[in-house]
Amino acid sequence: MRDVHREIAHWLEPLAAIIGVDAAGNFRATYAANKTSAARLLIGSHLDTVPNAGCFDGILGVVLAVSILQALAGRRLPYAIEIVGFSEEEGIRFGVPFLGSRALVDRLDDDLLNRQDGCGISVRKAIQDFGLDPNRMSDAVLPADACAYLEFHIEQGPMLESLGLPLAVVETIAGQTRSELVFLGRANHAGTTPMHLRFDAVAAAAEWITAVERIAQQTSGLVATVGSVETKPGATNVIAGEARVSLDVRHHDNRVRVRAAERISLEAAQIADRRGLKVIQTQGLNQASVAMDAFLSQQLEESLSKIGCQPHRMVSGAGHDAMILAEKIPSAMIFLRTPGGISHDPAESVAAEDVAKAIECGLQFLDQMASSPNFLSRTCRA
Amino acid sequence: MRDVHREIAHWLEPLAAIIGVDAAGNFRATYAANKTSAARLLIGSHLDTVPNAGCFDGILGVVLAVSILQALAGRRLPYAIEIVGFSEEEGIRFGVPFLGSRALVDRLDDDLLNRQDGCGISVRKAIQDFGLDPNRMSDAVLPADACAYLEFHIEQGPMLESLGLPLAVVETIAGQTRSELVFLGRANHAGTTPMHLRFDAVAAAAEWITAVERIAQQTSGLVATVGSVETKPGATNVIAGEARVSLDVRHHDNRVRVRAAERISLEAAQIADRRGLKVIQTQGLNQASVAMDAFLSQQLEESLSKIGCQPHRMVSGAGHDAMILAEKIPSAMIFLRTPGGISHDPAESVAAEDVAKAIECGLQFLDQMASSPNFLSRTCRA
Repeated sequence: MRDVHREIAHWLEPLAAIIGVDAAGNFRATYAANKTSAARLLIGSHLDTVPNAGCFDGILGVVLAVSILQALAGRRLPYAIEIVGFSEEEGIRFGVPFLGSRALVDRLDDDLLNRQDGCGISVRKAIQDFGLDPNRMSDAVLPADACAYLEFHIEQGPMLESLGLPLAVVETIAGQTRSELVFLGRANHAGTTPMHLRFDAVAAAAEWITAVERIAQQTSGLVATVGSVETKPGATNVIAGEARVSLDVRHHDNRVRVRAAERISLEAAQIADRRGLKVIQTQGLNQASVAMDAFLSQQLEESLSKIGCQPHRMVSGAGHDAMILAEKIPSAMIFLRTPGGISHDPAESVAAEDVAKAIECGLQFLDQMASSPNFLSRTCRA
Repeated sequence: MRDVHREIAHWLEPLAAIIGVDAAGNFRATYAANKTSAARLLIGSHLDTVPNAGCFDGILGVVLAVSILQALAGRRLPYAIEIVGFSEEEGIRFGVPFLGSRALVDRLDDDLLNRQDGCGISVRKAIQDFGLDPNRMSDAVLPADACAYLEFHIEQGPMLESLGLPLAVVETIAGQTRSELVFLGRANHAGTTPMHLRFDAVAAAAEWITAVERIAQQTSGLVATVGSVETKPGATNVIAGEARVSLDVRHHDNRVRVRAAERISLEAAQIADRRGLKVIQTQGLNQASVAMDAFLSQQLEESLSKIGCQPHRMVSGAGHDAMILAEKIPSAMIFLRTPGGISHDPAESVAAEDVAKAIECGLQFLDQMASSPNFLSRTCRA
């Protein structure tokens, strides 16, 4: 991460940006406005990634921001631009995503700072070990003149490719319900227990998984996923007494998501009941959908039109730092087409032409904002 | 195991049996006949068990044999009785079952002796470490006068309990087909991949598991089990690209078993095909059913009738040492009722009255054999 910070700082040298790393490990670089007391537009994404990852998830959004500044060729705007390279968006090390962006909205609290990784090292300790001061977290909070956040990110899904479009405006980040279900039956001998005397946790879980898929297919825009199944004892010749399964349900409409999650939960209870099993359901994440800012999104649509792209709008099924920033400042996002929809994989890619379009879109947007009284007035809190 | 051998030897002291441990670690004790050059009836079961086991699987059959000899109260029969306490029936340590009984039918060959446990210790080395000589394996082979094998074993299933019967004659040990299937789809983001663009290995496996259960329910006497499911990457927010599942299919009729296994395999191929996934099927065990000896089984039925038990016959869904011995000598089995069908679990139990009935049945059988010209003539090969 230190190397990444150094490299980006090196690219920014010719632009005379004010560079630093905040107490949450976020890279921050401010490109000054052409006047004092101006508003500040944040452009960014995250610098961390997942194990066995590709090269674009997150970091492309930061590199794009640098490219857009470079493309200004020294021109200053009536607002400052701050590039943010967030830390710990994925939540791999500490099991909680968005640690970096939470610091900007003043939500990286003691609970989170005390959270430990698999080796017992706390977030606080990791920050210290990196050479930062966790007691100066308030310095990471959004400055008073911050007035909008813009994020470029790869779609990480197949929609834009299937539509033949390079870019889209994200209008909503879908809400998520996550839970864990444990079907409890009775482990028994696979050879000596006739079918009608079984309490088979795997068979029950399988029936439920097919129901989850069916419910999702029947509900427009809903995605529901069982990504993990663990069986106990998990032997070829033993009927499983326990099957532990994960559930992930997402939709841009909270009511639809909550209703679907309830129906899926009811289905689990009914299947267990009919088979004489028990099912224990534990809800994890229950996160409402987050709408992106209407004005900024409409402006981004206009930017897309002006550079000759169809101003498509879409829902993000994945969470992003923009979702966190939106709690405090108007936020907007642009997705870039992801070939094959492949992400979190070394095969993750992006087309150079699409990146060029994104830079063009960003420049267009900056110019629109520079001449928008609405933007310059409504957003400056200083 | 040394303590078990010592304890059983101690019980047999008053009976003046000839006691030893063969090169495969089987406990062997011969109770001489009332004449020389007589036939030899083997009675036994296994002394090893599984982790987290109960107290009766296997060892009850050996203890019952001792009790039956004790109940003879010094009386000698016109044939010798050899008690065998088999080693390594379960196959836990080396992944191959029936190591002890294979030695008696001369099938504990170099391949098996070179097989290693999880720590890299071979069967041969383990035998040496126990203080035995693996080069003397031929001494473990059935003696020429061995003419029949009788095994008492807990049912390990719920059938006798559901029928209200203490004992049953096993007429066949069911054949088994075991295989592993790997459904290969495409791992992808659970939030950004719409339902119609997924290649979900867990959803495919779940559909197949419900089909396995349905096929088994539709086929009389068939049991089919998916005991293990492993998902990759196995994360809540990632559509699984791989689901690895086990299959265990058993039936007393080989044709029915093979046909069912084929139908299940075809179902997997069709489900994968329809969903755009691949499925790799690897067959493991493919073991034909083994019929118990008709004459001995009919005699056991008669013994049951004479002691006032209904002479019920049943199929064993589990494999037993008797299946191995049957390759070389007429073999028969008696099952004891297993409360709740619970086995391979500390809650495994057996009723004292049922054990008393089994001893009575065994004594009755010994007397029938003593006066059976058929038994005494047909079986003695010496």
